[in-house]
Amino acid sequence: MLNTLRRIVQDVNAAHDLQSALAIIVAEVRKAMNTEVCSVYLFDQEASEYTLRATEGLKKSAIGIRLGRSEGLVGQVGLREEPINLDDAPSHPKYRYLEETGEAPFHAFLGVPIIHHRKILGVLVVQQRERRCFEESEESFLVTMSAQLAGVIAHAEATGAIKQDNYSQLGEVKQAARFNGVAGAPGVAIGVAVAVLPPAFLNGVPDQTCEDIDAELAHFQHALESVRDDLRRTSSKLADHIRPEEQALFDVYLRMLDDNALGAEVSDLIRQGQWAQGALRRVIDEHVRNFEMMEDPYLRERAVDVKDLGRRVLAYLQEQQTVNIQYPDQTILVSEELTPVMLGEVAKEKLVGLVSVQGSGNSHVAILARAMGIPTVMGALDLPYTQLNGKQLIVDGNVGRVYLSPSDELRAYYQEVVDEEKLFIAGLESLKNLPCVSLDNCRIPLWVNTGLITDVMRSLDRGAEGVGLYRTEVPFMIRERFPSENEQQEIYRSQLEAFAPNPVTMRTLDIGGDKSLSYFPIKEDNPFLGWRGIRVTLDHPEIFLVQIRAMLKASAGLNNLRIMLPMISSVSEVDDALHLIHRAYGEVVTEGCNVALPPIGVMIEVPAAVYQVSELARRVDFVSIGSNDLTQYLLAVDRNNPRVAELYHSFHPAVLTALQAVVRDTHRVGKPVSICGEMAGDPVASLLLVAMGFDVLSMNATNLPKVKWLLRQISVSWAKELLQSVLKMDNPHLISSTIELALRKKGLGKIITPSKAQ
Amino acid sequence: MLNTLRRIVQDVNAAHDLQSALAIIVAEVRKAMNTEVCSVYLFDQEASEYTLRATEGLKKSAIGIRLGRSEGLVGQVGLREEPINLDDAPSHPKYRYLEETGEAPFHAFLGVPIIHHRKILGVLVVQQRERRCFEESEESFLVTMSAQLAGVIAHAEATGAIKQDNYSQLGEVKQAARFNGVAGAPGVAIGVAVAVLPPAFLNGVPDQTCEDIDAELAHFQHALESVRDDLRRTSSKLADHIRPEEQALFDVYLRMLDDNALGAEVSDLIRQGQWAQGALRRVIDEHVRNFEMMEDPYLRERAVDVKDLGRRVLAYLQEQQTVNIQYPDQTILVSEELTPVMLGEVAKEKLVGLVSVQGSGNSHVAILARAMGIPTVMGALDLPYTQLNGKQLIVDGNVGRVYLSPSDELRAYYQEVVDEEKLFIAGLESLKNLPCVSLDNCRIPLWVNTGLITDVMRSLDRGAEGVGLYRTEVPFMIRERFPSENEQQEIYRSQLEAFAPNPVTMRTLDIGGDKSLSYFPIKEDNPFLGWRGIRVTLDHPEIFLVQIRAMLKASAGLNNLRIMLPMISSVSEVDDALHLIHRAYGEVVTEGCNVALPPIGVMIEVPAAVYQVSELARRVDFVSIGSNDLTQYLLAVDRNNPRVAELYHSFHPAVLTALQAVVRDTHRVGKPVSICGEMAGDPVASLLLVAMGFDVLSMNATNLPKVKWLLRQISVSWAKELLQSVLKMDNPHLISSTIELALRKKGLGKIITPSKAQ
Repeated sequence: MLNTLRRIVQDVNAAHDLQSALAIIVAEVRKAMNTEVCSVYLFDQEASEYTLRATEGLKKSAIGIRLGRSEGLVGQVGLREEPINLDDAPSHPKYRYLEETGEAPFHAFLGVPIIHHRKILGVLVVQQRERRCFEESEESFLVTMSAQLAGVIAHAEATGAIKQDNYSQLGEVKQAARFNGVAGAPGVAIGVAVAVLPPAFLNGVPDQTCEDIDAELAHFQHALESVRDDLRRTSSKLADHIRPEEQALFDVYLRMLDDNALGAEVSDLIRQGQWAQGALRRVIDEHVRNFEMMEDPYLRERAVDVKDLGRRVLAYLQEQQTVNIQYPDQTILVSEELTPVMLGEVAKEKLVGLVSVQGSGNSHVAILARAMGIPTVMGALDLPYTQLNGKQLIVDGNVGRVYLSPSDELRAYYQEVVDEEKLFIAGLESLKNLPCVSLDNCRIPLWVNTGLITDVMRSLDRGAEGVGLYRTEVPFMIRERFPSENEQQEIYRSQLEAFAPNPVTMRTLDIGGDKSLSYFPIKEDNPFLGWRGIRVTLDHPEIFLVQIRAMLKASAGLNNLRIMLPMISSVSEVDDALHLIHRAYGEVVTEGCNVALPPIGVMIEVPAAVYQVSELARRVDFVSIGSNDLTQYLLAVDRNNPRVAELYHSFHPAVLTALQAVVRDTHRVGKPVSICGEMAGDPVASLLLVAMGFDVLSMNATNLPKVKWLLRQISVSWAKELLQSVLKMDNPHLISSTIELALRKKGLGKIITPSKAQ
Repeated sequence: MLNTLRRIVQDVNAAHDLQSALAIIVAEVRKAMNTEVCSVYLFDQEASEYTLRATEGLKKSAIGIRLGRSEGLVGQVGLREEPINLDDAPSHPKYRYLEETGEAPFHAFLGVPIIHHRKILGVLVVQQRERRCFEESEESFLVTMSAQLAGVIAHAEATGAIKQDNYSQLGEVKQAARFNGVAGAPGVAIGVAVAVLPPAFLNGVPDQTCEDIDAELAHFQHALESVRDDLRRTSSKLADHIRPEEQALFDVYLRMLDDNALGAEVSDLIRQGQWAQGALRRVIDEHVRNFEMMEDPYLRERAVDVKDLGRRVLAYLQEQQTVNIQYPDQTILVSEELTPVMLGEVAKEKLVGLVSVQGSGNSHVAILARAMGIPTVMGALDLPYTQLNGKQLIVDGNVGRVYLSPSDELRAYYQEVVDEEKLFIAGLESLKNLPCVSLDNCRIPLWVNTGLITDVMRSLDRGAEGVGLYRTEVPFMIRERFPSENEQQEIYRSQLEAFAPNPVTMRTLDIGGDKSLSYFPIKEDNPFLGWRGIRVTLDHPEIFLVQIRAMLKASAGLNNLRIMLPMISSVSEVDDALHLIHRAYGEVVTEGCNVALPPIGVMIEVPAAVYQVSELARRVDFVSIGSNDLTQYLLAVDRNNPRVAELYHSFHPAVLTALQAVVRDTHRVGKPVSICGEMAGDPVASLLLVAMGFDVLSMNATNLPKVKWLLRQISVSWAKELLQSVLKMDNPHLISSTIELALRKKGLGKIITPSKAQ
């Protein structure tokens, strides 16, 4: 049973588009259940109708037939969101006979809903002639099948949006496709997609006609010969190391590449006008598929052999091809997993947006994008990025959303947003040297979060008064080994110098979670609840000590360093870290370096630290809240996980209550408290934060002018009233709309990120 | 650089024991750094000395030489926990010349500490003749190397404990080896290990001599021939599906199995007296190794082909072998990943303990073990389980620890613990029908947590007054598909009937996290912060509705059902769930079933729910704390992760404060509150819980009598005083020792789990 289930899900997963996925489902489920009919009806939200999309057993000509939302037994299954299992469907009052389907002979009916993320996607139906209810085991097999397939169908629907034209005969509305991801870097970009494919990536090769068939054939022959040479060379090199019968493997591969074998099939396709890369992809695909259909799991894996040969040939084909991507003026780079190198290849003035299928807001590329101010969406899992070259895209980096081939209206709307934003930002230039003071004369220092050297200029340019969070892991992430003490010292020195005499808060190495070092991999089931931040560095004092020494030495003569400890969850961790810091300080002083012991602070990101904030604050000089992680832990939500990302809310009442408690308890022991998560850079949220009494807000440089603009136009006493009223609410959505309404009433509505306003 | 690093780590990881791991390190690091000497000194905690354990470049005869803790430069590196990089070591005041090593010609010295989990394991040293400091990049390469190798060395030291005899020439103290895991089921067991290996598991085959060489040869020939037959059959079956040149792959495999190839090598070893399985393992290992050493990543993967052939032959060898494990009287089953089937094969009276290398406290086997009352340790990652057959083991399921070949003293100590425990438990028999009433006359209902039918008898037998948590996912976990409504109804009915008229609290399906269904896999980066509990069932109303219907129908005429919602993090989730429950109730009533709407409750496991408990409690009839998950989220610690498990503390001040807040806020809105995590079953913790005012404690049946025994001998007012005093403390260790001391003073010390007392 379980194997059948797995096999069907695997096969459906391997389907190239929604239609073939559905065809596989009906064929395989009918076979597995040994029944006479299996059909899939998909629900169209807009039209509020079901469409028969695939069937085995009913007339194929009926595909496309439609049913109202509550029509027939299919409609009943959807309405009830429960299976319906009948021995004689026609006698059921809700039965609706559809002549076109030829379903008259079938009496027994079992329909189960296909539900994904609370939404009904459709109904899966099996039918049989015999008048008997399907058995319980059959019913629950179909329920299980449907629950597993829901995700696959939803993904196929989403990635398949681009191909909707194929089904236009079904009368579907052609519309802009929308893909959800997570916010990587704020802002909105409108532009043209440039898909960056990894080298020798067979699946990414598009179909393309070739002009000069003979040249293409020669090109292919050359590639083939090169791979054969490689294999022969390796084979003879290995002659001493492996046994002759193992060496024979190479002969097999060579034979596969023979002109009469794979080679011949590819050449045939080229002769029909396909370019070599496309022809190769098609032939390899077919052979891989043959292997993958085999029952024996080991033989199924042999598909790898064929794929590898394909990749080797493709690498040569691409080598000869002069890779010369033309980047249009408004380039939006899209890729499976964007890397900093890919960014480097586009001229800065042409790059307007970034979209990565994999990765999170803490990925290296996202950090870089924030520093460079390029709107970015990460983790857009459903995006069919290989097919996007040249397509129009809108990237909404504020909420993490991508629009493909937007309608004119949507485009115009977003264009206005972009233009207004530009104008607005330009108008903020004048604020640069003005202090952030509220109408009732409260002074609120605005600091920045940095990580890269590029951040420094932007930050100074935007009037930052200090650094609330310098992410020391960034220089660690872009290396291939731990930086040495001297290297670290230089990097830290340049940060400290750039901002002196303003304070620079350096967070000690914060790896683990979703931030990893290639040269120090950490593999865990739940990295966010694992070995990260101070937990790693306390376990590796040799790394911690060197970093502290480097920071202290770098601060000589400047004395604007502050040291901050991440992921503190108990007082003993603070005690241990302080002990190591004092030891490093002693060493540095003994070595003759004349530095002052800098202020030391703890980050409040773990819920336990919220409860213990008085004890923690007493031990150190300042406290700073990392609101991103704190929110994740308070709500038990990994916001990089698309399945639950919607549950992540900065305005969740629990988050607001916890933040307020930290401010209260820290002030009670006479220490200052700042906040350095993304919340601080959200103008709407900043209102609540000043009302709570934070001493410093630290944010990304991009948003600093906006926050300053807003805070200069409100009074803190008004913000406090607003805070009191929202703290009585139990719903995060209500809280954010209440604040937005209050801002609109004051004529300050333009500060609300447009995507939120939709 | 990164590749060199990876390759060395990989090679070291593949080493069979600590000594060869160290030999690989010194050889490869010397080569990679192109230096003249590389040595490893390991630190012996007990003797407080370093021993030169491996070297390339110094005299091999010096291996075994010892240095005091602060002796020489090696000692300095260890003391400072920082690298030391000198151009002329002999001129350093701490330099200590070791004549035996022949290190006189070497001037430059670079030593870096090897630190794992804050403990210094040793020092890695490179030396060269030339009087120049090693470069920064070299220093940081060695630091990176050492940080990565620390884990590998620690693991090799731990798993290698069993082979310590090999190094006895180094004078090491032979001692009982200890392995840490997580607590799976409480209790202590002393017994003999029986290792259960998966079928056709090549790595697990031990060396063994064979008596009848000719029979063994024939046996092997037969297996070989069987595999050849299989391959030929598959090959001809596929003739139509794949091209002839692809089919040639089979010929290669056949040739590899030839009598003159692999086959000959195996036969040779058999002739030398090794049994067929052992001979096969050795030959395959060597060939696999040859492939794995290759530079080309694809060729490296070809090792898989060889391994697969080996597995196929082994399967036939094992098939012929009559598998007839003799289970000794005190069997402790150990395996890579224990399954319920493995348990089923041992007669219940012979099985005293379980150890699984993989898995967590929520694994199916652990749930089963708790129900059966078998002391169990899960996740004992360092345990060399394949080598344990017939060895003496002690399993401490209270703290998750395994002792191998314990000393007579340790064995005697634990034997006493087991005997006392037995006596103590026997003495508690009389409590069965007595109520749990404190000295000052407070009545504290003690309920149980259940999941399997086996739990029912044990629970009733121990005087449970109700079920505080029935884990409905357990019947889901042991199936191959979602159970149907009728199947569920039957299962729930038997629970409800067994306890009627006492209440049974059924938690709705709680999958995700570390509890997965084979037929509904969920793959996520951080499953604990992902799609789990109510999040899954609200997204799949078709599954939730069927479960609620089944529960309601099962309760007909009994009316002792309570429904509980897991993983609630916002009020809207409760509203949505209530809506679905009312819908299912309406359906069931419409269908003519006469049932009352049962009390509905929410679980408090997410920190956000702690803050919102009043709003949540107002909407439902009762509140119950899941203290395991709540503690994990509050502390941001996955207790299944051995790297951070030590940070998990039920007595963390934040946990205690949060629990108290939940009781206070729930009572304030007039609703009852219970607790059903493991904390409730810990007698020591139960003191604090009754002091906080919990209305019900729900625990595993095993511990119920002990908790009752204790609570009947204390007064709640005294417990409240104790609670007030510990709430002022900031350290969890101090809190637990304070309570233990207070219990000892009252002569109630024997309730403290012995492992804690150590």
